[in-house]
Amino acid sequence: MIKSEEPDKFLVLNELARRRGFFWPSFEIYGGAGGFVTYGPLGKKLKLNIESKLRDIFVNRLGIFEIESSIITPGKVFESSGHVNHFKEPMVECLNCNKRFRADHLINEKLGISLIDVEKMSLAEIEEVIKKNEIECPECNHNLKEPTQFLTMFKTLIGPYSGATGYGRPEAAQSIFVEFNRLYKMAREKLPFGVIQIGHALRNEISPRQGLIRLREFTIADLEFFFDPEVAECNMINEVENEILPILLAEKREKGLEDTINLTVREILDKKIVCSEWQLFFMVMAKKLLISIGVPIEKQRFIEKLPWEKAHYATQCFDQEVYVTRWGWIEVSGHAYRTDFDLNCHMQASGADFRVFKELEKPIVKKQLTVKPKMAIIGPEFKDKAAELVGTLLKIPAEEIVESLEKKGYYLVGDKKISSNHVEIIQQKNIIRGKRFIPHVVEPSFGCDRLFYVALEYALTIKDERNILSFPKTIAPIQIGVFPLINKDGLNKKSKKIAAFLRTEGLLVEFDEAGSIGRRYARADESGIPLCITVDYATLEDDTVTIRDRDLWDQVRVPLGNLPLLLSDYFKEKIKFKDFGDFIKSK
Amino acid sequence: MIKSEEPDKFLVLNELARRRGFFWPSFEIYGGAGGFVTYGPLGKKLKLNIESKLRDIFVNRLGIFEIESSIITPGKVFESSGHVNHFKEPMVECLNCNKRFRADHLINEKLGISLIDVEKMSLAEIEEVIKKNEIECPECNHNLKEPTQFLTMFKTLIGPYSGATGYGRPEAAQSIFVEFNRLYKMAREKLPFGVIQIGHALRNEISPRQGLIRLREFTIADLEFFFDPEVAECNMINEVENEILPILLAEKREKGLEDTINLTVREILDKKIVCSEWQLFFMVMAKKLLISIGVPIEKQRFIEKLPWEKAHYATQCFDQEVYVTRWGWIEVSGHAYRTDFDLNCHMQASGADFRVFKELEKPIVKKQLTVKPKMAIIGPEFKDKAAELVGTLLKIPAEEIVESLEKKGYYLVGDKKISSNHVEIIQQKNIIRGKRFIPHVVEPSFGCDRLFYVALEYALTIKDERNILSFPKTIAPIQIGVFPLINKDGLNKKSKKIAAFLRTEGLLVEFDEAGSIGRRYARADESGIPLCITVDYATLEDDTVTIRDRDLWDQVRVPLGNLPLLLSDYFKEKIKFKDFGDFIKSK
Repeated sequence: MIKSEEPDKFLVLNELARRRGFFWPSFEIYGGAGGFVTYGPLGKKLKLNIESKLRDIFVNRLGIFEIESSIITPGKVFESSGHVNHFKEPMVECLNCNKRFRADHLINEKLGISLIDVEKMSLAEIEEVIKKNEIECPECNHNLKEPTQFLTMFKTLIGPYSGATGYGRPEAAQSIFVEFNRLYKMAREKLPFGVIQIGHALRNEISPRQGLIRLREFTIADLEFFFDPEVAECNMINEVENEILPILLAEKREKGLEDTINLTVREILDKKIVCSEWQLFFMVMAKKLLISIGVPIEKQRFIEKLPWEKAHYATQCFDQEVYVTRWGWIEVSGHAYRTDFDLNCHMQASGADFRVFKELEKPIVKKQLTVKPKMAIIGPEFKDKAAELVGTLLKIPAEEIVESLEKKGYYLVGDKKISSNHVEIIQQKNIIRGKRFIPHVVEPSFGCDRLFYVALEYALTIKDERNILSFPKTIAPIQIGVFPLINKDGLNKKSKKIAAFLRTEGLLVEFDEAGSIGRRYARADESGIPLCITVDYATLEDDTVTIRDRDLWDQVRVPLGNLPLLLSDYFKEKIKFKDFGDFIKSK
Repeated sequence: MIKSEEPDKFLVLNELARRRGFFWPSFEIYGGAGGFVTYGPLGKKLKLNIESKLRDIFVNRLGIFEIESSIITPGKVFESSGHVNHFKEPMVECLNCNKRFRADHLINEKLGISLIDVEKMSLAEIEEVIKKNEIECPECNHNLKEPTQFLTMFKTLIGPYSGATGYGRPEAAQSIFVEFNRLYKMAREKLPFGVIQIGHALRNEISPRQGLIRLREFTIADLEFFFDPEVAECNMINEVENEILPILLAEKREKGLEDTINLTVREILDKKIVCSEWQLFFMVMAKKLLISIGVPIEKQRFIEKLPWEKAHYATQCFDQEVYVTRWGWIEVSGHAYRTDFDLNCHMQASGADFRVFKELEKPIVKKQLTVKPKMAIIGPEFKDKAAELVGTLLKIPAEEIVESLEKKGYYLVGDKKISSNHVEIIQQKNIIRGKRFIPHVVEPSFGCDRLFYVALEYALTIKDERNILSFPKTIAPIQIGVFPLINKDGLNKKSKKIAAFLRTEGLLVEFDEAGSIGRRYARADESGIPLCITVDYATLEDDTVTIRDRDLWDQVRVPLGNLPLLLSDYFKEKIKFKDFGDFIKSK
């Protein structure tokens, strides 16, 4: 746990999240089930808005395809991808109480050995460390059994047969890879192209903790970007070359150093720190995404993963981390260069051909020699040796035979002389128009629940002992509150009309008539509503309302007729609250 | 299968869906896995838009809460809800080849006994029918084993312990019920209120067929609406009282009749056909939803379920059905009156209190008499009989003792006379301020994949031998195509600029420069893009473009400056394409 002067926002948020309906641990009436959360009404809206951000950046603006497939996946898929072999965690069980624990976490907590170092250990090394240091069960202080590997995928059966194993997917990437041929057709057989999937995924954690940060069921956004490794340049890299990324290199991390350096994209390219331009481009997009949900760049960093930390499919991997008050730096996205690993695995296992054809700019013309034995002559002459002789002849490069025939007049197979009478020399032109290859893949992968958590933590501000969730306006779960000043004299009816009208304009509106106007503002601030409209007696006379800003606690009076355009521009970030006054004057 | 003069749109759509990227069977490279589909780029957009429709109607306009919880659910939840006992299908296995089949479907297919009648049968009756009619394995014609019940939930283990059974949820409703107390607080402890959950659900079908119609993993939208059964009126029913619903009653269906009657909401209420006003209100919403995604009311009907067709939790249930060319009438939503069944089950099993407190308008004052034995007198007088005597006394209603004391001067317990010396009579006022009760629930439940399928089928029109997907504009997967007339002279660059600009306006835009303009229009029609903008040489001179309508194949010339407002109004359904000309003239 990181020590810090800041208040532990985790505690404030957990209480607020339950009370206001952002999220809470599921199934509490049955004693709970670790690693599952329920997003309440406000949380679900926030989560949808964050997912919309992903869609807006990647699908709508960059033209990445979005697909949706199933969570339950036939066993073969994860056998072929290597997950059944690799998706495991070391586990120890108590000899006495039979409680089970993650061995690496236990060693880290008991001995203070860093997780980086524990991750390097083999099962035998873990066992040795546990024995040597006499680590006991943290529940009952008895001895532990030898560590085993626990498969952290949920296993089930598909259909009524006992052989049809299925797994809950631990990531959304494989269901993109297995559909590569169809998706490539939809890209009109052109590289590069990308495919994103945002959906639930499952990891059967041994002992999940940390609330939203480590869940058994979570929402992942996996983006697989396919490109030709020989044409690996990103055509948009120049547009972002001056963007700065805070990078913490593997060589520093290995020494236990935390010195993050701020580098421009151009510098990172020149120093060859990230091995794929596309990977780097998506890291910039990830930085922008986090800024757009409220996390400043000073609270982000990209750490290069160490060899033993990387997933089995990754050549190079950077994690995007965000600083949070409870746990320090936590991963919010991973950026892996997966090469052709996955497509290759599935090609091998399924027999499908995932190679794409690439036309050469200029076809290559190759001359090809073939030596064709004349059986009508060889047969009678060599009799029962003929078959073997021909077999040998066909294995020898044609060029070698032709050269020998030209130089010596014969070619020797064992003790047999082959002359130009025995064979026909055929010369052909072979035109190579292109090549077949397996595309390479870079993958940005986002943990949506973690995006949600950091958005919440960075929105939280405490002012005059009140909680305010200052979400960026584009992700606020509710856009506008509409309140009658008091609940009588037709103010209520007028307010409802205004709320209904704004809803038809596509805005997310909350109508609230309960309690004093001050309490309603406070409630709205805690729900993160950027603007509140209050309907008062003047509204009935001149059709104007007040709009109050969540962060400034300022108000401005606006004619109802100006509302649609004003609010539309505000949420498209074309106008700020402080300019509302000028906007109205200009009308 | 229903015989019909219409072409089997299922076949056309399946081909089109694969080719254009709406959906296809998943995992084909591994031989497929029945009951799983992948939504491709266009399909995912369409599916999102249909889900947005649900959100718009229920969440944004009616203020229903939306939540999101996990698919993997602790065993206890589905044990308590009755699913582990009831969520089963009859299955038979071949003695020879060991293939397994749904017994009810087999009987229906082999003997033509209607599914309505087969559903009534017990396992013993099914066995008898199979034996009597010598039904054999449809694969190898050998005898079948006796039928068994197959649990159609996916089973797994949560965490590393063997006892912690988890199920893949077969519906999204239970994870709403178990969180009732939190949700009720979010509704500020007021009834009625509703909660919707849209998400994946799992049913381990024995042998899934029918493509999108019967999937093992699908998207469900379950809306649970909680109300006080004593105040069961729907406050919006008058707004919809003239809406017409086509109803097919259970009594007709039982006789094998198909005579649907068109009734207004008012008539349905007067005839007491639907037992809950709220249920009826949601049926009207469901009708409107289907119309909004392109299914006319003539192709919809609501059938009342027969007693043996209803789920174990439902008192009354109507299915909303839509007519499709391949299978005839298929269910797209179910409307069940679940009473307090589910909340009650979970209360009993968990010990949580799901009763809500309802204040009476006027508190009821009740006088209460208590008889308190005077031990100081009874003890010495009755000695070792005293304890038993007092025990008996306390069980007798105080009124009875007081009456006897007043009339006779004593009260007889066995042979012992109790006088007013032995007891103290206490009179208290008891004020009853309210009552506690379990809310009742009506549930509209939508199958989103079926909504998707019927939207696709009703969008399909064939004109001049070309497929056009005439989606309603509000669900079209892509809103606007932007095409340079030809791919040179700066038309391309200008088009890209326009496309980028429209994207910042929040529109879903496809830029396409490949092939002749005619081919691009054809491709756009088949993808269901309502409007295509073409950039030509005139655009470079006067900043105007042509807009072409997908369904009318008409074009109109529009200044670029008018585009944002025009398109915004068009997709909000404020203006039609045919009025674009007048709109421009008015500017």
